[in-house]
Amino acid sequence: MKTSIGAKDIVFPTPVFIVGTYGEDRKPNAMNVAWGGICSSNPPCIAISIRRQRCTYENILKRRAFTVNIPSAKYVTEADYFGMVSGKIADKFKTTGLTPVKGDKVDAPYIQEFPFNIECKVIDIFQISEHTQIIGEILDIKVNDEFINKHGLPDIDELKPLLFDPAGSRYHVTGNAVEHAFSAGKAFMASEK
Amino acid sequence: MKTSIGAKDIVFPTPVFIVGTYGEDRKPNAMNVAWGGICSSNPPCIAISIRRQRCTYENILKRRAFTVNIPSAKYVTEADYFGMVSGKIADKFKTTGLTPVKGDKVDAPYIQEFPFNIECKVIDIFQISEHTQIIGEILDIKVNDEFINKHGLPDIDELKPLLFDPAGSRYHVTGNAVEHAFSAGKAFMASEK
Repeated sequence: MKTSIGAKDIVFPTPVFIVGTYGEDRKPNAMNVAWGGICSSNPPCIAISIRRQRCTYENILKRRAFTVNIPSAKYVTEADYFGMVSGKIADKFKTTGLTPVKGDKVDAPYIQEFPFNIECKVIDIFQISEHTQIIGEILDIKVNDEFINKHGLPDIDELKPLLFDPAGSRYHVTGNAVEHAFSAGKAFMASEK
Repeated sequence: MKTSIGAKDIVFPTPVFIVGTYGEDRKPNAMNVAWGGICSSNPPCIAISIRRQRCTYENILKRRAFTVNIPSAKYVTEADYFGMVSGKIADKFKTTGLTPVKGDKVDAPYIQEFPFNIECKVIDIFQISEHTQIIGEILDIKVNDEFINKHGLPDIDELKPLLFDPAGSRYHVTGNAVEHAFSAGKAFMASEK
């Protein structure tokens, strides 16, 4: 049996995107964003949804640039802090001791210690509700060397990215692989009806 | 050290959204979508990005409705198949034996066997590139009773949703919880600078 739980902002999984921006006087800021994901492959683009009162929103509008930094499990405390305090009142990089590095491609800082950093330039902005969705074209991704596999791609098992559970309000690690994509489903293709 | 891997459509994690729609003659269809996520909290909305040549795209335009069905690990083979074959040539529900059930709120089918089903009405459509982003307002979520916890919410540890790794092209399960959100970060608040 199924139970209706009503209209809620819950899906599984949601990401833990730490969005890096510069404010006035080039003060670096970082914010924790769970509402987002890839929204285009060619060119590769990422969508993030944030509320308009956020410091990050103002910063993005001014410089048309942001980074998305994905934390590994060891940075869960820093990631959570980035979602609890406004950059309008705190210097979140100073407090956490993490290192903002100016992007090579855009005018926004990435987080040196986080293993996966995406540089994005804003190509569109959509008003949806109280949330504004910002579309960033991905101009480059940087990955810590030790997490790059023999194919030149990031290895999720080594990188151990966090994910967020909006129902339980907890961070989780990524679990084991269970199947290869575009492969497991072949089992049904022989019996297509 | 970090290595640049260029502009790629990779983030961690991405979801495994199986999108349900009706086509002509009410033929149910389901498609595997990794590009999407929550994009608004009030009202709760979900964004999915698909290419315009997809059967699902045509179906959504006609009925302005879709469902998002999240598979547990036991349905990984079905989920993968939904991403490999077009509904223009196959009857994917017949082939997999899964059960399409008409939504209570919208004119789209959800997948009975999958533990988490979201009913969405289309409220906006944004052209981004080769991908079109469809914004669905979440009108209801249904969850299998056995996965609802004492708070009336879905339990991610019981439900065991799949996630997708676009770098390794594999499906993973969700791993263990490591911290509570809006809690772990308090450790830094005492030392704010």
